[in-house]
Amino acid sequence: MPKKATYKDAGVDLEVYAESMSRLPKLATATFTPRVMRLDGGFAGLFRLQNEGKKYDDPVLVSCTDGVGTKLKLACAAGKHDTVGIDLVAMSVNDAICCGAEPLFFLDYVAMPKDDPDLLEAIVTGIAAGCKESGVALLGGETAIMPDLYQSGEYDLAGFCVGVAERSRIIDGKAIQPGDRLIGIASSGLHSNGFSLARKVVFEIAGLKGIDTIAELGGHMVFDILLKPTKIYVKPVLALLEQFGANDDIRGISHITGGGLAENLGRILPPGFQADIVPDSWEVPKIFNWLQTIGNIDTDEMFRVFNMGVGLVLVVNPDCYDAVRQTLISLQLENFDLGVIVPAESEPRR
Amino acid sequence: MPKKATYKDAGVDLEVYAESMSRLPKLATATFTPRVMRLDGGFAGLFRLQNEGKKYDDPVLVSCTDGVGTKLKLACAAGKHDTVGIDLVAMSVNDAICCGAEPLFFLDYVAMPKDDPDLLEAIVTGIAAGCKESGVALLGGETAIMPDLYQSGEYDLAGFCVGVAERSRIIDGKAIQPGDRLIGIASSGLHSNGFSLARKVVFEIAGLKGIDTIAELGGHMVFDILLKPTKIYVKPVLALLEQFGANDDIRGISHITGGGLAENLGRILPPGFQADIVPDSWEVPKIFNWLQTIGNIDTDEMFRVFNMGVGLVLVVNPDCYDAVRQTLISLQLENFDLGVIVPAESEPRR
Repeated sequence: MPKKATYKDAGVDLEVYAESMSRLPKLATATFTPRVMRLDGGFAGLFRLQNEGKKYDDPVLVSCTDGVGTKLKLACAAGKHDTVGIDLVAMSVNDAICCGAEPLFFLDYVAMPKDDPDLLEAIVTGIAAGCKESGVALLGGETAIMPDLYQSGEYDLAGFCVGVAERSRIIDGKAIQPGDRLIGIASSGLHSNGFSLARKVVFEIAGLKGIDTIAELGGHMVFDILLKPTKIYVKPVLALLEQFGANDDIRGISHITGGGLAENLGRILPPGFQADIVPDSWEVPKIFNWLQTIGNIDTDEMFRVFNMGVGLVLVVNPDCYDAVRQTLISLQLENFDLGVIVPAESEPRR
Repeated sequence: MPKKATYKDAGVDLEVYAESMSRLPKLATATFTPRVMRLDGGFAGLFRLQNEGKKYDDPVLVSCTDGVGTKLKLACAAGKHDTVGIDLVAMSVNDAICCGAEPLFFLDYVAMPKDDPDLLEAIVTGIAAGCKESGVALLGGETAIMPDLYQSGEYDLAGFCVGVAERSRIIDGKAIQPGDRLIGIASSGLHSNGFSLARKVVFEIAGLKGIDTIAELGGHMVFDILLKPTKIYVKPVLALLEQFGANDDIRGISHITGGGLAENLGRILPPGFQADIVPDSWEVPKIFNWLQTIGNIDTDEMFRVFNMGVGLVLVVNPDCYDAVRQTLISLQLENFDLGVIVPAESEPRR
């Protein structure tokens, strides 16, 4: 008779899994908003769309998914796992607000080679922090243990966000007109894009280690510079949408991720229009200049891969341009006059 | 001057990525239902909750996420990538219906080591097939290229589903009473759970190859037996919920996944009640007996890891038990009289 085969021998220990799972509910519960309906142990997360404070005439659900990319590799190398969850939430909620939606809830997928309750708790601590910062409820998640797919010490994350907007207030860029002004809102650094290239420059070309410091970048440690969490723009954008009209005033919102300024602005511009972005209208943060110099990277490639210091772009009616910038300043968000919308036949400066 | 660093050299080729992406819209579009709002190139998927045919008084959003686990390793070994997407959708939509919800839309996350337009198209073909079978729209997705995280020829998948139910028709198990009957609906095989153990038995202990056939299992090929897609229960359950009352008649629905019958039934049973499942009240499919024999696996372990032939369990009011079974038969779903709900102080048979 052969030795008894068990799930545990096959790499899946349901008891350690249960231990892992026992730590997560309090992290999730701390993010719950009044519309979450409790269903402990249930098969799904439940969220009441309407309650006493919230009613919709014609609600449109807005849904996004994203991961963190190879920024994860850095987190693993640094042994710092409680901030990539903020990046994970940021990548999805910043997409959701581009439609003018209020993000409602978030779900995460964590895939690991073996159960590790401490690691999982650190990851979900970051996710919960991102959810709180965004005002979204962490409504559910899945932890997949895949001994053969992931290498020891590594993991992957995926996130999923659902928001809602009144149909009449969906912002899809169709209201954008020539003469509209472009306002850039500062990023916090690389956010979660271009890390395959950034890692190549830092570790291969510059030959640095994660714990090295970079004098030109304020003497900060490589890990700290690169792992800085993605800025979450939910609260300021929702504040703007309270104060200004969707489409009348705020005509387009673009989250600058992979593909950079040009490609992501292109996603919201109606045919026949283009963005005339004034070069040097904002100060590119030093990290980007440093990466470009060390890696000898073409400027076009830099602008295609990185956000270059602009994390979100608003396209606004020129009549409210000053007021929008004033609101952003009052919200302590660094922002820039990036340029204007012009007909496509014009020759853009970049 | 060092050689110019590019994103492409760092393993990310935005042009092949664009080629990959160009193939996906037609697959997604084919799943679109009337409430999907088109927003090509936008930052999010849009879904109109209400339209002429659909209104809700107090809509509750129901959300689930899941992956496919190490069934993926088999798909990779077999080089067959167009059915794991069905599993991916099944795992989430079968969870959503447990609350009595109508699944509305789905988003996928695909993570791969390098761009591979053919592979991605095959994966998304399966996802789209699962969505069509479930009546859900494939509203969005993310493809992450992570050269350093995934090994050549491998990938990971995560799925997210959102559904909706009237608040008064949410099924949460609270209506379950002693005397309620348990109806099991047949699984199509292993579904997407226990694959770490199944692979160990088949490939390590039995020493089989994927292309070998198993005489005791009808002479079918190992790959075909193991990769059989997870059964999707959306349409039959929605049909039952049209015909029978939520909570009055259909009092609980449990999707049998990791943890098996006991654990997943436990998720919906109110405190003080338990399921008295009659052993041998259904015929366990041969694949499970074969795995148990070859692997010398304890019966308890089998029931904890695998669905043992029961993919979904309905807890129903005894007054409509016969009618529910009749409807299932008319829908050509094999189903079983599993047992009854009893007070917890009773001694259950298993």
